[in-house]
Amino acid sequence: MSETARIVFTPSGKRGRFPLGTPLLQAARRLGVDLDSICGGRGLCGRCQVIPAEGEFAKHGISAKAGHVSLASPVEARYAARKGLAGGRRLGCQACLMGDLVVDVPADSQVHRQVVRKAADLRPIALDPVVRLHYVQVAEPDLHQPASDLRRLEQALAEQWQLADLVIDLRVLRQLQKALRAGEWAVTVAVHAGRQIIAIWPGLKERVCGIAFDVGSTTIAGHLCDLGTGELLASAGQMNPQIRFGEDLMSRVSYIMLNPGGDAELTGAVRQALGALSRELAEAAAVPADEILALTVVGNPVMHHLLFGIDPTELGGAPFALATDGAMHCTAAELALAGVSPSARIYALPCIAGHVGADCAAVVLAEAPQTAEPLTLIVDVGTNAELVLGNRDRLLAASSPTGPAFEGAQISCGQRAAPGAIERVRIDPSTLEPRFKVIGAELWSDDPGFAAATAGLGVTGICGSGIIEILAELFLAGVIRADGTIDGSLAGRSPRIQPDGRTFSYLLQAGEPELRITQADVRAIQLAKAALWAGARLLMDHAGAAQVERVVLAGAFGSHIDGKYAMVLGLIPDCALDQVSSAGNAAGTGARIALLNHAARAEIEQLVRRIEKIETAVEPRFQEHFVGAMGVPHSTEAYPELAKVVALPTPSDLAAGAEAAGQRPRRRRRVDLLASLRHVQAER
Amino acid sequence: MSETARIVFTPSGKRGRFPLGTPLLQAARRLGVDLDSICGGRGLCGRCQVIPAEGEFAKHGISAKAGHVSLASPVEARYAARKGLAGGRRLGCQACLMGDLVVDVPADSQVHRQVVRKAADLRPIALDPVVRLHYVQVAEPDLHQPASDLRRLEQALAEQWQLADLVIDLRVLRQLQKALRAGEWAVTVAVHAGRQIIAIWPGLKERVCGIAFDVGSTTIAGHLCDLGTGELLASAGQMNPQIRFGEDLMSRVSYIMLNPGGDAELTGAVRQALGALSRELAEAAAVPADEILALTVVGNPVMHHLLFGIDPTELGGAPFALATDGAMHCTAAELALAGVSPSARIYALPCIAGHVGADCAAVVLAEAPQTAEPLTLIVDVGTNAELVLGNRDRLLAASSPTGPAFEGAQISCGQRAAPGAIERVRIDPSTLEPRFKVIGAELWSDDPGFAAATAGLGVTGICGSGIIEILAELFLAGVIRADGTIDGSLAGRSPRIQPDGRTFSYLLQAGEPELRITQADVRAIQLAKAALWAGARLLMDHAGAAQVERVVLAGAFGSHIDGKYAMVLGLIPDCALDQVSSAGNAAGTGARIALLNHAARAEIEQLVRRIEKIETAVEPRFQEHFVGAMGVPHSTEAYPELAKVVALPTPSDLAAGAEAAGQRPRRRRRVDLLASLRHVQAER
Repeated sequence: MSETARIVFTPSGKRGRFPLGTPLLQAARRLGVDLDSICGGRGLCGRCQVIPAEGEFAKHGISAKAGHVSLASPVEARYAARKGLAGGRRLGCQACLMGDLVVDVPADSQVHRQVVRKAADLRPIALDPVVRLHYVQVAEPDLHQPASDLRRLEQALAEQWQLADLVIDLRVLRQLQKALRAGEWAVTVAVHAGRQIIAIWPGLKERVCGIAFDVGSTTIAGHLCDLGTGELLASAGQMNPQIRFGEDLMSRVSYIMLNPGGDAELTGAVRQALGALSRELAEAAAVPADEILALTVVGNPVMHHLLFGIDPTELGGAPFALATDGAMHCTAAELALAGVSPSARIYALPCIAGHVGADCAAVVLAEAPQTAEPLTLIVDVGTNAELVLGNRDRLLAASSPTGPAFEGAQISCGQRAAPGAIERVRIDPSTLEPRFKVIGAELWSDDPGFAAATAGLGVTGICGSGIIEILAELFLAGVIRADGTIDGSLAGRSPRIQPDGRTFSYLLQAGEPELRITQADVRAIQLAKAALWAGARLLMDHAGAAQVERVVLAGAFGSHIDGKYAMVLGLIPDCALDQVSSAGNAAGTGARIALLNHAARAEIEQLVRRIEKIETAVEPRFQEHFVGAMGVPHSTEAYPELAKVVALPTPSDLAAGAEAAGQRPRRRRRVDLLASLRHVQAER
Repeated sequence: MSETARIVFTPSGKRGRFPLGTPLLQAARRLGVDLDSICGGRGLCGRCQVIPAEGEFAKHGISAKAGHVSLASPVEARYAARKGLAGGRRLGCQACLMGDLVVDVPADSQVHRQVVRKAADLRPIALDPVVRLHYVQVAEPDLHQPASDLRRLEQALAEQWQLADLVIDLRVLRQLQKALRAGEWAVTVAVHAGRQIIAIWPGLKERVCGIAFDVGSTTIAGHLCDLGTGELLASAGQMNPQIRFGEDLMSRVSYIMLNPGGDAELTGAVRQALGALSRELAEAAAVPADEILALTVVGNPVMHHLLFGIDPTELGGAPFALATDGAMHCTAAELALAGVSPSARIYALPCIAGHVGADCAAVVLAEAPQTAEPLTLIVDVGTNAELVLGNRDRLLAASSPTGPAFEGAQISCGQRAAPGAIERVRIDPSTLEPRFKVIGAELWSDDPGFAAATAGLGVTGICGSGIIEILAELFLAGVIRADGTIDGSLAGRSPRIQPDGRTFSYLLQAGEPELRITQADVRAIQLAKAALWAGARLLMDHAGAAQVERVVLAGAFGSHIDGKYAMVLGLIPDCALDQVSSAGNAAGTGARIALLNHAARAEIEQLVRRIEKIETAVEPRFQEHFVGAMGVPHSTEAYPELAKVVALPTPSDLAAGAEAAGQRPRRRRRVDLLASLRHVQAER
């Protein structure tokens, strides 16, 4: 019998020859096989579980027989008795090579495993934790060798984990001596970025967590994840308490400009909210605060600057100068964030430009348009729309001043997406009668039992996606004309078309509350959708593209609207319908990726530098596109793909229609629209 | 006439050839000549002053004629009018090469100039500032190029100062946008260690300062220095407020062990003291707090740990484990230090061992025994004595538990060194009458007018150096015997020798207050001096040395005692008297060096690792030396050098004297001394 044996690890295929008696974990490390361990091979943490296989492996030229792996050691038996060891699984640090062997490393034993996301069509997140745990046994102090406790800890980390040149947080240094003695010279340290000791516990510690925050102007969402497994432990959201200083971004910036010290108030408010959210998440997942050691943050530039205590006044006017467009690093203590370890490392993705924030960078990170061939347009609609266009060759980004209409503000019957809000609408083209669905109920309004199903909810208003649908349906039914006016001549055909001052409105619900679509509502959406379309169109001009190949709708609003209606109304440029997809909360996903994958941070930082930033405010073409996009809808010429599924007017239909409606001369209309545009921009 | 000309800079001798019209500063930079500048060549700061010389320079082969340097530019004329320009001096950034030239760079225009210390025998400190100022002009923001304010600042620093990969403090980032606009796109930044932007001001800023702190158990001293020139702007000291928790180190550690949270109280007290001292220094020198950007700290291990908020309990008992023996870096904000910029960088020199602190490292830095040939013993006496022995081959360090007797505690008439305290004493060997000098008066007590001169002071007690002198003089006069007993048989010869219980005492002053040297006083000093001597002797054993070649007395006590008396009493080993010197406050000097010279930090950090640490507590030889050193004095055999200037007993004299005095059997005495030793160690 030879003194060595061969070993092949699957799925990596890495192979080598080792002396008999070599622990499998040690062989894996020598070969660079991705096999996890916190306790450093002491049979405590169970992270290095592997599955040695018996049998003939012709592919590997290996015949693995019974006895080619050592029997369970007492340590392994104790682990199995205490924590269980699924059939066939062995502790890699205890099981030793006794003959040729094929060993499988299951996904959950890999450090760089993939984190599966809920929806099947979403790419998994590769795990590459920014904070790792290392259990070490430290030499006791010796009067004859007066090396300090820290020096002996560093020596242990160098010898047992090959970690060199570490720096320790002062806060952790203060806990060091007690932890070493409480753990009887065995401690677990958390090491950030392979360089900084940011936490210490006596004995073995097996979990550290992080939170990915998406700080929106309206809502703040947080996702608590296990940094070792990538598992999503809890998600929670709350309103951004800054709303009391102003509904939209610019009103908050105005508040700061008018109230000395106002920035500190807004900064305090958002930090308190993050603290409260952290506590809520920790409680929901039963995670102690000192286990939460990494935070990532995304948000638009104003939210981003306020969180870090940077006065956002410069973002309130041209040239919209960011204080910084680099990634930000600091500690929870520096931001006085509660609910997490004060040593928790905060990472904010870089902002791209004055109106294109870290949230947009996160969307890019989540959607990775730079990795694909098709020219992709990503639309993230909040109060501002952030737009990214590109593919593997090139990436462009811009922000478009859509205003808050898509979120239901500035709309007479608009409301935020909440139970009782209408989210789906259909209009019968012959009777002009509506039917609809509300958030919180499964039935349509003309289904039997709808009244009962919504009794507790009421039908309280229309949310953003409902507004898009009703306007598109009203257009398709002929109620709204190509220039956006509600056709009063139909009042005779349906009692729902009613005079309303000098214009007309469409009565959606007569009851309590009365819900109607007014001419002003249509105009508000026209302005918003024209701004969105013009921004996309401007990016296409810069990219020299007449057509986009994919559209990704992101954000709370974007992921709830129906791509077809978005095109009917002209929010987005034409695209094959099956290439229009919803990305859900892509900014939040990007924040989670940056939390779980250390390498992704460098990746997005480099990518952001490469993105071409287009400033809509200084582009004359933006205003031209904006004015030209006010009408509803674009014709078969502008929307050839949409025309395949929806009956759209031809260009000549539109011309005829405009004439029939006695449209005012083009010159005059253009002036009106420019005034509206200025209004919108002043609102920014 | 050629298109280029030659230039030689003195004193460096660096030379080169440049196109006519090259500014002298630019030529200096290209040649690596050490020429200062804050404003980057804009004629604002006046740091780059040089002296072009006319004449024949045979040595350099240069004939420098009138007209070889350009006339004053309008910028230079404006500078001269505003701030003055001494005769012959030119602004290096304005004056241009117009022909062959020899240019002198005066010391005050060099970045790495030498800082002259007050006493002529002290080596100058080489300047190598850890914080440097850089004035930059930053591009204005541009809608078409949305680089952030920080990015444009970084670009300007890279282009104008060749500074790359800078990191900015979050606190400074918060001030960035306002500073850029207030300075109309010109700002001065303070860069720490060539890497971190720690302050920003609009326009030109010409001075930053730092404070070197020496945190002693009893007193805290601070020295405010201009980091650009090295100039000492102010010094101040105050009592360490921790004294209210315990006079000496061990009573403070006991307080902490007995009072949960006590460490935070002591930490708060020392930090408040540093803040108050900073404010006092800043006020004295009219320096605003935000200009104070660097602090260095030295202190013994307990002081060091408490300042950083590290519980020093482990230092209270064997094995005396330090939390860290590395250098410490943090910000004033992290320690909540007031009176300086919150971004000020704090640097603490490394501690050497559990009883050998950063103050000792500072003494080594100041005295540099490792650079010299002679075997040097450095003695820094505080409550503990810290001892360093070595030369260029080898360095050893130890701490000796002398207790507080040398500081006047445990002595019946002892007091701290303060006006009115006796510091010099002479005893007439025939009459046994004393004469003395007190701190605050120039006259001896037997000089005419002494009473008048001390009327406002009184004669209040005896300070440490006075106690050493009176005991040594009493020994030399035969009043104190070799075993330390006061010879009662002399009571007949002088009324000053008086019975005092079962022993005798020497009456120094009969008046108010009555001052006398009791037998207990002698015993306390015997214990302290034996500990000091034993520590030195132990280091000599380890170094294999029978004799030291130099003795440096450091610290407040050490620098006031007379080397001769220190040897007569046996505090220090024998050494030629002219090789015994006082280093003044060497720990404070070391702190100043670390403040002003960045490279010195790496130097002392490496050196400290090389020092051999000797732990007296576990060395049986220490106890032997201690017991053997209790007697006064050592004989001509032990002190051959001292015997040249002072009449010392021979070994046979000593043996005879001991017999004559009816000394108790040696065995019995040894037991008593060991008990005393234990008492001393319990006091530690």
